[in-house]
Formats: sequence, structure tokens, C-alpha cells
Amino acid sequence: MAQPWSDKLRPVVPYVPGEQSKNPNIVKLNANENPYPPSPKAMEAIGQFDCSKLNLYPSITSAPLVEALAAYHHLSKEQVFVGNGSDDVLALCFLSFFHSATPIFFPDITYSFYPVWCSLFDIPYRQIPLDDGFRICPRDYDAPNGGVILPNPNAPTGISEGRAFLEDLLAHNQDVIVIVDEAYVDFGGYSALELIDQYDNLVVVHTFSKSRSLAGLRVGAAFASAPLIAQLNAVKNSYNSYPLDSIALAAATASIGDEAYFRATLKKVMDTRERTAKALEALGFLVYPSHSNFLFVTHPNKTAEEIFLACKEQDLFIRYFKLPRIENHLRITIGTDEQMDRLLAFLRTYLQP
Amino acid sequence: MAQPWSDKLRPVVPYVPGEQSKNPNIVKLNANENPYPPSPKAMEAIGQFDCSKLNLYPSITSAPLVEALAAYHHLSKEQVFVGNGSDDVLALCFLSFFHSATPIFFPDITYSFYPVWCSLFDIPYRQIPLDDGFRICPRDYDAPNGGVILPNPNAPTGISEGRAFLEDLLAHNQDVIVIVDEAYVDFGGYSALELIDQYDNLVVVHTFSKSRSLAGLRVGAAFASAPLIAQLNAVKNSYNSYPLDSIALAAATASIGDEAYFRATLKKVMDTRERTAKALEALGFLVYPSHSNFLFVTHPNKTAEEIFLACKEQDLFIRYFKLPRIENHLRITIGTDEQMDRLLAFLRTYLQP
Repeated sequence: MAQPWSDKLRPVVPYVPGEQSKNPNIVKLNANENPYPPSPKAMEAIGQFDCSKLNLYPSITSAPLVEALAAYHHLSKEQVFVGNGSDDVLALCFLSFFHSATPIFFPDITYSFYPVWCSLFDIPYRQIPLDDGFRICPRDYDAPNGGVILPNPNAPTGISEGRAFLEDLLAHNQDVIVIVDEAYVDFGGYSALELIDQYDNLVVVHTFSKSRSLAGLRVGAAFASAPLIAQLNAVKNSYNSYPLDSIALAAATASIGDEAYFRATLKKVMDTRERTAKALEALGFLVYPSHSNFLFVTHPNKTAEEIFLACKEQDLFIRYFKLPRIENHLRITIGTDEQMDRLLAFLRTYLQP
Repeated sequence: MAQPWSDKLRPVVPYVPGEQSKNPNIVKLNANENPYPPSPKAMEAIGQFDCSKLNLYPSITSAPLVEALAAYHHLSKEQVFVGNGSDDVLALCFLSFFHSATPIFFPDITYSFYPVWCSLFDIPYRQIPLDDGFRICPRDYDAPNGGVILPNPNAPTGISEGRAFLEDLLAHNQDVIVIVDEAYVDFGGYSALELIDQYDNLVVVHTFSKSRSLAGLRVGAAFASAPLIAQLNAVKNSYNSYPLDSIALAAATASIGDEAYFRATLKKVMDTRERTAKALEALGFLVYPSHSNFLFVTHPNKTAEEIFLACKEQDLFIRYFKLPRIENHLRITIGTDEQMDRLLAFLRTYLQP
């Protein structure tokens, strides 16, 4: 494209959306979606929503959800922020907190959006290699930086770090903002939420898309000290005052009120994960310890790409990243027991000597 | 706030949300909301939505809505973009299309978010004064610039320009992107949509919040040449892949399919607007010709601030901007006939000599 106005466009690498099959019979284990529906209370909140009021703007502060999350996590409402999915929340965090000429630090193997946001907002960054076991080395983060972000559990490895690790990281990074992206934490990881009162430079980001089965509604949250949340709100209100619609607000708020369903669903996913991990190990896979709703695996006899393509032929969609260091690994979302059985049955046939 | 990390924060002027009354009896004529509910078809789409599927991510391309809008406006789907309200769409447009060291141009009296986005994204800008009748002078936009944005009808004046004006503006600004923000166009303005095939540097932005009574759902759209829409999608996918949730997508798509209700609601609002304009003129107001769902007025005997405060006392909320040049003007959203009658009844008493 070379038009007279072409030089006015922001340079950006066009994102190519992943393959989406129209076949309703596929087993979709490639997007880390929860296989179970959202809480019946969330669905009821949608069913009972008075749609004749949609002519009015939603709450500008998303007050009901902010208050519900504050009560749930024993925080004040000044410590809670919500947005249009955790991607929106994270993008606003990058824009708000990483405003420095010194590069921010994050792992080389991590959520693929981090470098994308850096590029979009002109944020310098350095990717710090994980060790050979795909673990984060906290000492690598001691050098001067403009901020730190890491997912915990990490993606796509599923590996989680605990309190001592995070306190160590925070102790050595007091003059920058440290963001912990806890998209998968509810599936058994350690949450840094309990450190928020202690570290005023800590931001914890959550999503309703995974553990709360609300990917279709786009709800995410951030938790931090009151000054950081105020900054996030100021930037949010400079971008889009009403990121969360009235129905998403009602459903997400109702979801927080249904602890029993939440716990039961998490348990089902974690039980299936453990069962699947054992079955994959029995098939010769190396399976990394996972505290998320997916497994990160590699096989000694077949390449990840071969397995990925063979599965796809059978309408079994798992995730393959053609990226340095992990090009021989696969990320498998935990579906229902039936879905995992279909995958395992195929792999048993496919991998038999 | 002076913490060791304070210098890592992006400088931003904290936005203070407008006053929101908890009194359900207020007549709310200060946010340009449509007084009528959304199309029954949109509400039905929400009622029939299968909420058990909300565990899955929405369509990454928002395909059903993009296709419906393309068919409705006789465009190709490569010429259509949708987002989380027109604020999200406009913010992405600023980020995508205004990437130049030369200032972009927009009117001095206009949508208050334009300078905010410029500040957030470090976009240089120049505000071009409207003439004394609050009209845009196209010759002022002939100077070299990094892009042009203007609302048509303009806000908060409600004044609309026609095809000749826009073609003149486009003819003199071929080497930059020209964005026309048509948030209010359905209430009788001229739409530049018919110029899109002719000018590949033209972007037209619409919203579902005003004419389609879906402010609570957050849906906006942009229309432009295929290369500009591709750029917008690339930036969108670098920010938040799924800005539009599945329910908003279903409801907005259904709304597009209900032309009869759309036309009937528009007619009601426009009829009430004309009746209200005459009644205000009879009370001595100067009323600017409006092609929107609000009236911009001033009174020779009372200041705008006095009238605003007196109305507020009566739970009649209208909009007062304490800003240079318009600090003696008021913006009054068109509500139902009953709401306007309540406002007019009070003003008759309040303004009587």
C-alpha cells in the first residue's frame, strides 16, 4: 500500500487470527477455554436483566463488580479495577505503568501479547530467558529496569512460583511497578493478592475468562494499592470511559457470588488435569507440572508439529507454537473428561510402536 | 504521591466522572441517551442467547455484526470495523491513523475526548476555532496537518455540514486520514458513508449508543477503505483481540435487522426535538439548528450556569460546560415528550418576568 497518506499510519505487524474450524464436532483444546458453562447465577443474572434499560450508559465505575471483588478478596474498593477482559486490563496497565526509557523485563517464553503491547505503546523491553527447565531466575530481574511483568502460573508452560519467589522479586524491584498476570491462578497457583497491602508497587491481574467460564463476556480485573488503581482509572477514563457493558457487569458480579459452583468447577478441571497428565506420561510424554487449566508437554519420539497435525486431522485441536525453544512442545487445554478421553484414545493409537 | 516508582507512571490528567444522581425521579437529559428502549429484536436476541456457551471466546472478527453492517450500508465486509463503543473505535483510530509529527486538526469546540486521546498517545494537535456562529471553516483545514477529525453533526453544537463541505475538506486533505465522527448522524445529519468508495483516506465512525438505544452494551463501528480497516484490525488485535462480547454482538446484529423500529424511534426523537426547539424559542432561547438528539441553546436574560443550577434543583439534569466560548450555553438531550414537558413547564415558571 503506497498512498499519499500511508506515512501517517502507525507501523504495526498485522496479527493473523488463529485457525477457527466451523466443524461443530471438533474437540477444541487450543484456547484455554473452560469446558463448563458459567455459574447458573451468572446465567440467571443475564436472563433477568432488564434489557429495556440498555438505552442508558453502564456504570462508569462498574461499581457493583468492583464492590463484589473487593469484598471477595478482602480489599478496599479503591484497590480494585475492572475492564473489558484481562487483555484490556493488561494493555491499560502497560500504558499506565511502563512509562520509562529503561526497558521493562519479562520472560522470553510467556504470554505472546507482552511484546505486542510494548511495540504498540513504544515501550522498550528486554526478554529474559527462562532456565532450561523453563523456570524464571529471580536474579535475572535485579538489573535496572522500567518495570516487570510475569504471568504466574506462566503461559504456555503452566509452571507456578510461590510466595518466597515473588517476595524476593518484589524486594529487588521496589522502584518500578511489578505486574503479576494471574490468568490461571485459580487452578492451583499461588496468588500474590495477599501481598498487595505490603507492596504498593504490585499489580495483580485476573480474568473471568478461564476459571469463571466467562470468556464470551470479556471481563478482567486488576488489584493494587489505591494510588496505582487511581492511575489505572485515570488512564482508562482517557481511553474508554465505559469498557464494561451493563450485562457483563451483572453476570460477572453474580458469578462472584457463587463460590460453591466456582470451587466445584475448578475441582473438576484440576481432577481431569491430573488424570490426563498421568495418562500422557504413560504414553511417553514429558509433562510439566501444571497449576493452570492446560498441560505443556513434549514427546521423545514424535515432533510437536507432527503430533499437532495428526491431531488436527482427527478434529482434535491443540496448540502448537512454532517459536524458538518451545517448537517441540504442545499446549493442551483441559476439557471435559470425555474430550480428554477422545484425545488420549487417538494418541494411544497414533503413538503405538 | 512520591514513591520510588512514581516516575514510571504515565502522566495523565485524572478524569473526574460527572455527577450521577441516585434519585430515580430525575429527568436525565445530560448524557445524550435515547429515551426509548432498544429494538425488541435486540432484546429478544439477548433473551434467546445460549448463556451456557459464554465459556467460549467471542468471534475474533465479530463476523455476524460486520456482515450485517456491510449489507445494511452497501459496503464490503472489508470496509467495516466494530469495537467496544465508539470511544473504543475512535481511540483505536487515533492510535492507528494519527502517527505523525505534524499536528492533527480538529475544531476548538467539539467532542471533549479528542484532546484526551492526543495526550494519551502523544499525538500533536491543533484546535481550530469555529466561527462566531459555531460553524467549521473548511479553509482553516488547508494547512499541512497530520490528520483531521471532526464530528458531523458537531457536538455539543448539533450543527451538521453537508456533502459539498465534506468533499471540499477531503479534496484539500488527500495526504492524511480524515475521520468523520457521525455519532449523531441518524437524527437527520448528512452521512459521509456514500463517499467511502471515492476517498480511500476517509474514515466514518458510528455508534449504537444513541440512535439504536444500546449505550449499555458498548458497540461502535468504523467504515473506510479496505486498507484502512485492515490497519485498524491490526491495531485492534495488538490491543485487545476480543473487544466485543458475544451478547453485545448478538444484540447489535439483531438491532440492524429492525429497520422499522429504528426509523420509528428516530422520528419520535426528531419530532420531540422540533417541538421542544419551538417551545424553547418561545421562551426566549436562542436554539441552534440541530441534526442530533440534543439542542444547544443560550438565553439572553439568564446565564447558562444559573439555568443549569435551577434545573438541577428540580431534578432536571441538563448539560453545562464551563468552557471558553460556550460557558453561556446549555446542551439539552431530547427525552420523551413527557420529560421535555416537565423541563419546559419548569423553565416557563423560572423564566417568567
